Amino acid sequence: MEATYRALCARGFARLTMQNIADEADVSSSLLHYHYDTKRDLLVAFLRYLLERFEEKFEDTEDEDPEERLRGLVARMLPEDESVESDVGDGGTDAADDGGTEDAEYDRFGLAILEVRMQAPYEDAYREQLRTNMGVIRARIADVIRDGVETGAFRDVDADRTARLLVDALDGARSERVTLGDDDAPGEVAAALDEFVLSSLVADGGDGR
Amino acid sequence: MEATYRALCARGFARLTMQNIADEADVSSSLLHYHYDTKRDLLVAFLRYLLERFEEKFEDTEDEDPEERLRGLVARMLPEDESVESDVGDGGTDAADDGGTEDAEYDRFGLAILEVRMQAPYEDAYREQLRTNMGVIRARIADVIRDGVETGAFRDVDADRTARLLVDALDGARSERVTLGDDDAPGEVAAALDEFVLSSLVADGGDGR
Repeated sequence: MEATYRALCARGFARLTMQNIADEADVSSSLLHYHYDTKRDLLVAFLRYLLERFEEKFEDTEDEDPEERLRGLVARMLPEDESVESDVGDGGTDAADDGGTEDAEYDRFGLAILEVRMQAPYEDAYREQLRTNMGVIRARIADVIRDGVETGAFRDVDADRTARLLVDALDGARSERVTLGDDDAPGEVAAALDEFVLSSLVADGGDGR
Repeated sequence: MEATYRALCARGFARLTMQNIADEADVSSSLLHYHYDTKRDLLVAFLRYLLERFEEKFEDTEDEDPEERLRGLVARMLPEDESVESDVGDGGTDAADDGGTEDAEYDRFGLAILEVRMQAPYEDAYREQLRTNMGVIRARIADVIRDGVETGAFRDVDADRTARLLVDALDGARSERVTLGDDDAPGEVAAALDEFVLSSLVADGGDGR
């Protein structure tokens, strides 16, 4: 799966072949084909792997309070230069390069994932897995918001709708950055979300609105 | 330009040829080539046309108050079933079909524009024009917010950052809808923006924070 990540960063999705991934993984193409019939099967498994990584990292934060968890989740969707975390994309990896390399990787990987998503209208397997990934990420964020509302840390809001705003705004900003080269988009949107959503949740926390 | 819009809805961007557009416009392919050397030139002109349409419609609202204008701008980025307007995409058209057809058109056109955007990293002309379009739309929204702050209708916020959140959140939601078929995304995000941004601007309006 790490090899798939590297191959996607290096070649993007459209030009990616099973052979590229086999080369990155240093295994034979026939061994790879033994595990995955097609590039599509492998990519779906890779998307599932990203989600598992997200879930693992999410579980690592279960001792944090809701505000800390929510801020951490937002930070994980940002490129390295805007974030204290070293994650990339929906689930990320732990590559430990310098900022510049990380950023280029964030952009290349983000673009590759968008390429997969552009195939979703025509390919059920991608669509279903991508919807599952977004749905689970949104559900975890909504759970954190609900926790915060229950403990009185946050004011009473529609958790699902709030989670959707956070995910879609950061997704839109990331897409703007990786397709149009507007590098400030994710950081600016995160700052706006902080002001209008996160701070607003906390500021009125516990008053039950 | 209307023919380009129809051809994009019918065929998407990748499969689109100059001949398709000539057919839709009911002109000869050689006449079309007389005006536009390449499909790229024509598409850039089309993106410019979308922006001009946006500007015209924006100017039509200059008698409205800032809150009304801002809500109208958000509504224009929504599909027909979520919106009272009949616009499509960044600038839209005035096709007057029933809701179902309009929605399918919103999705097909949205996907075609995303396809163009996916070419932006490799094609300067698309990137520059798409950045211009997004920049102008964002600037107009920021102007409306600044107007509202000046007249005391809105509380004092960073207008550019707020505009970016509005545009990117709606853009992310639209992309989620047209690629993954999550039809509720634009409406849900608009509702969240209403709650966290628009209502928050108005609620504290005039108190100078």
